[in-house]
Amino acid sequence: MVNLRLDIAYNGAPFHGFARQPDVRTVQGDIEAALARLAGAPVRTNVAGRTDAGVHALGQVISVHDLADDVEPARLQAALNGVLAPHISIWGISVADPQFHARFSARSRTYVYAILQAEAPDPFLAATTLYHPADLDVAAMNEAAGHLVGPHDFSSFGRVPEPDATAERNLFELRCRREGSIIRVRARANAFLQQMVRSLVGTLIQTGEGKSAPQEMPQILAARDRASAGPVAPPYGLCLVSVEYDDGWKKPFEARPGSLEG
Amino acid sequence: MVNLRLDIAYNGAPFHGFARQPDVRTVQGDIEAALARLAGAPVRTNVAGRTDAGVHALGQVISVHDLADDVEPARLQAALNGVLAPHISIWGISVADPQFHARFSARSRTYVYAILQAEAPDPFLAATTLYHPADLDVAAMNEAAGHLVGPHDFSSFGRVPEPDATAERNLFELRCRREGSIIRVRARANAFLQQMVRSLVGTLIQTGEGKSAPQEMPQILAARDRASAGPVAPPYGLCLVSVEYDDGWKKPFEARPGSLEG
Repeated sequence: MVNLRLDIAYNGAPFHGFARQPDVRTVQGDIEAALARLAGAPVRTNVAGRTDAGVHALGQVISVHDLADDVEPARLQAALNGVLAPHISIWGISVADPQFHARFSARSRTYVYAILQAEAPDPFLAATTLYHPADLDVAAMNEAAGHLVGPHDFSSFGRVPEPDATAERNLFELRCRREGSIIRVRARANAFLQQMVRSLVGTLIQTGEGKSAPQEMPQILAARDRASAGPVAPPYGLCLVSVEYDDGWKKPFEARPGSLEG
Repeated sequence: MVNLRLDIAYNGAPFHGFARQPDVRTVQGDIEAALARLAGAPVRTNVAGRTDAGVHALGQVISVHDLADDVEPARLQAALNGVLAPHISIWGISVADPQFHARFSARSRTYVYAILQAEAPDPFLAATTLYHPADLDVAAMNEAAGHLVGPHDFSSFGRVPEPDATAERNLFELRCRREGSIIRVRARANAFLQQMVRSLVGTLIQTGEGKSAPQEMPQILAARDRASAGPVAPPYGLCLVSVEYDDGWKKPFEARPGSLEG
């Protein structure tokens, strides 16, 4: 058996999230069905970031342990893309170390949330950005973000996947940058709770609107209560842009889709 | 009555083309319905380029002659955008000269066709570019294009809208440019026949693939027979990027959606 690493991008709109579920269309469901058809046997995949319904990915990583040794990565890539386009694209396949695991080997995940701040909406950005016509105070948002970086219990900002699991996460980076009419919020952490990035973004937007002050963030964290944070921003503005691994498992590809890169 | 110029963008995917038709959704149908609701009376619009089903626009222009003198452009824009988003965006409204007519005052129309030439498809470009994994010879395409520029009878490349109308059009510009993994074909003419840009692009792609030679273009033109040209490229790669008017009717807006700008 060979251990493969797949680097993939997808438009989240038509899917009920990444993780396979019975009876609904998911990214993992589509990929595993395509792999099973090619392999002639069931194939299971592991994934770096289980994105929520409607969330996009440019730099998602999955690993596959069940394929025969004689698989040719370039052929497999072409065959998968033929079946999975246009919503899912496999932009690279490589043979990985037998120990490599897309989820457990990952050191961090980086997401970018895109906000269009303009007088008129843009029909070509509607599927990948939140339209927010009113101006946002990016400096205040960055001041608020500074209070949230670090290892914290993020119960106020997301759902813990299993009942007794910890809500502690280490948020390495959270910053907002204006580029023309787009404001991008970049978030990197060892891992995220469910809806955590979108809840952080919704809270920062409230600060940007002047509805809350940056200094309120420590209180919101301490409350460990989702009602204390802002609303969850809609999924279509969010994209998983990269997954970081140790150098030994460095990302093997340079060329990649780049239309949403933050 | 005031004469208004509206600068608009739309994603063509959900529409059966621009021009109003009974029983199907069209861009003009949506805009006229929204205007009629706001005006409390039927409103008719004139348009610079009647784009085919599935074709996009960034720089479409319409004129409206039926609205009351006291209309406030900025308020009308906000009200329309509230109803028409996300697929249609009104990015500018201005009071125009009483003689201005979106269609008859226009001197030329500029379209851009986008082709993604890359190893893997890109889910975020799938709605606005033709995916063509094999390499295209852009120099040969430009040589072929050189034979097509000028005033010609373009019967080989499109449908004449009315049975006895002329198929003569003046093609001012037709050129292909590679920018990273995107090849853009830019076409500007006084006016285009139905499906003409897509037929030109389909023919140029055949040349880029080596299936026809640049020197065959004069013959194809002379045939005045659609069977002599290449296939019609799919609509989703095409976008009306601008309409050119005389200086007196210069485009009043600088800020505009730019994600597909060629």
